[in-house]
Amino acid sequence: MIQVAEALNLIAENSCKMPITKIKVDKSLGYVLAEAVYSPINMPPFRQSAMDGYAFTHGEHNQFEILKTVQAGDFSDDEIKENQAVRIFTGAFVPDDVNTVVMQEHTIVKDNLLLIEKMPATHANVRAKGEQVKKGELVLDKNTVITPAAIGFLACLGITKIKVFDKPKVAILVTGNELVSAGKKLPKGKIYESNSLMLEAALKAVGIKKTSIFKIKDSLKKTKIVIESCLSNFDVVLISGGISVGDYDYVKEALLKNGVTELFYKINQKPGKPLFFGKKENKLVFALPGNPASSLTCFYVYALPALKKLMGFEAIHLPEIKRKINSDFENTSGKTLFLKAFYDDEKVTVLESQSSAMLNTFSTANGLIVVPHDVTEVKMHQEVVILPLN
Amino acid sequence: MIQVAEALNLIAENSCKMPITKIKVDKSLGYVLAEAVYSPINMPPFRQSAMDGYAFTHGEHNQFEILKTVQAGDFSDDEIKENQAVRIFTGAFVPDDVNTVVMQEHTIVKDNLLLIEKMPATHANVRAKGEQVKKGELVLDKNTVITPAAIGFLACLGITKIKVFDKPKVAILVTGNELVSAGKKLPKGKIYESNSLMLEAALKAVGIKKTSIFKIKDSLKKTKIVIESCLSNFDVVLISGGISVGDYDYVKEALLKNGVTELFYKINQKPGKPLFFGKKENKLVFALPGNPASSLTCFYVYALPALKKLMGFEAIHLPEIKRKINSDFENTSGKTLFLKAFYDDEKVTVLESQSSAMLNTFSTANGLIVVPHDVTEVKMHQEVVILPLN
Repeated sequence: MIQVAEALNLIAENSCKMPITKIKVDKSLGYVLAEAVYSPINMPPFRQSAMDGYAFTHGEHNQFEILKTVQAGDFSDDEIKENQAVRIFTGAFVPDDVNTVVMQEHTIVKDNLLLIEKMPATHANVRAKGEQVKKGELVLDKNTVITPAAIGFLACLGITKIKVFDKPKVAILVTGNELVSAGKKLPKGKIYESNSLMLEAALKAVGIKKTSIFKIKDSLKKTKIVIESCLSNFDVVLISGGISVGDYDYVKEALLKNGVTELFYKINQKPGKPLFFGKKENKLVFALPGNPASSLTCFYVYALPALKKLMGFEAIHLPEIKRKINSDFENTSGKTLFLKAFYDDEKVTVLESQSSAMLNTFSTANGLIVVPHDVTEVKMHQEVVILPLN
Repeated sequence: MIQVAEALNLIAENSCKMPITKIKVDKSLGYVLAEAVYSPINMPPFRQSAMDGYAFTHGEHNQFEILKTVQAGDFSDDEIKENQAVRIFTGAFVPDDVNTVVMQEHTIVKDNLLLIEKMPATHANVRAKGEQVKKGELVLDKNTVITPAAIGFLACLGITKIKVFDKPKVAILVTGNELVSAGKKLPKGKIYESNSLMLEAALKAVGIKKTSIFKIKDSLKKTKIVIESCLSNFDVVLISGGISVGDYDYVKEALLKNGVTELFYKINQKPGKPLFFGKKENKLVFALPGNPASSLTCFYVYALPALKKLMGFEAIHLPEIKRKINSDFENTSGKTLFLKAFYDDEKVTVLESQSSAMLNTFSTANGLIVVPHDVTEVKMHQEVVILPLN
């Protein structure tokens, strides 16, 4: 049995980034860049008007003949004389012969004649070519997480494909003769299976959609065959249940027989003590406790950092925030506790039912308070560490 | 022109929850419950063993004949006498004739004989029927946001469908003759269009996937026709560009001609001054500025709260957090500023380029500092309000 910190280190050490893949920018939300991106163009690609107004050559004149109109999107290489100006709009191409734009509010226009009332400085309201980004300049660095803004930025430079770390394919195995799918009749002695949908949703919430669910009866042979197939076809195998010491808990044996190396089994914590973490080549295996709340706690605290490492994230652990706890709390277990809790801007409340069997508390919790194994009591108003869950 | 707070109020007042729809629990992540859910079953549905061990009738005896084995998932109504016990596992059905489970670590077993070394209390290690949730009891209240834990909780009670507020269908209209899609050759005077993909990604990030993109040239007629069609087929219309006062900005006229009521136009802020918000029946229209960074700022600050209200969320605005700013800052504009910024646990840094035209700064920002219009200077180490963007 190991401590929480050691388990987290083993997970970080043993999880490797996924292979690099090239994907379309419009499908890249939440992926992590696997190589730096440089701009293929100048931005703006030409001298661009920053205003609706009139473009002219700065000099002696303040009256001009209006030669033509240049809308955004137009191109013009007509000769423009020093006593001529063009009507121009925000974002439009500033013709080579002129160098300044006056905003329309500072002009008087009569028919074809422009009078500038308030003369701007030379080059005013003209964005230089490449002013924002120069061709060849770094756009986004390696390891950048792709946000909506990053997608817009890449698109505005004409970039359509980028290299990112692939997302893992995850198999969810659920074991137990007692489990019946929701929607079916519940025979005596059985319960509804819920961990598969819960874990599938938790994966979806971090952008992992390539998931498959497998349900196995308590049989060593069947468990071994399904695990073998999952190790071939998926990057990560999440197993729910079958990992404690009961006579019918075949999972660990099936894993070892499939050549999975045990990296740890059992953590000094509550809930989620019987967590197994193993590896076969680059494939990771988490055997989570079968109790739903323990299973989800282990997913957030241990499986999620591994998945984020695979996806290329630099910050892989749940962020830690601190709040004042609004009750006393004793920890006589000698174990690290993860307490389902609700926090707001100021304080955090330990929620009532901490049972590992049920998800009612988890459904209303927005964080887990971490009480380290060597802390025996927490006094009201003391600051505690919380792992936010949203 | 109105102030930011007034604009936010108008948006909250004029956005209504979407119609209720019934969906499958496994597809419900991120939806909001439109009615309370009550449990159709007791949980556990039967008296359940909390341990691997032996079930027996608490009384005079401490030695028992082991009658049979009850695995998780088994049902047994065989008669069990007072001097008999059954081998039992965690989660298994506790037969009616027995009332207590002793954990296996507290027993000695020889062949068919059980000796209890450490006698537990009566009813120990037996979870009562309905102990966690009773049939008919409230499971999740109306307005609960469906998390992975909530999905697991609903599934474990055998619930397969729930009533939620539907998610809006959103049309993204992009206007401008100057725009060319990424991947195509860039003619002189044109720029790559990026707002559609950026807004689509920002919608996807909040779970809105029913989106369509429409690109329109600067023409009143075409703009009017496309807006008319979008008002019929979508719940929200996001328009990018064409809303400022330039001669070729037809959007506002096209909206009014389509019977859209103007709720506000122009906010005393930077960036994003020329924001239009309107309504036709329950359909909402946001005409966002065309500059990418302004457009995204307006999306996060104004369109997102409206979308969250539609989806049934109670907390619709971006949460506000506070950090100490690590530079002095002057606001001589008389406008509310939204500054792209990067914050960590302790401080916040105003990022260098605040240009509204480009997304480079937005790509690395994780929050927007709000400097109210009536605040003229912020001193280093002073606390400022940040809207986090992740």
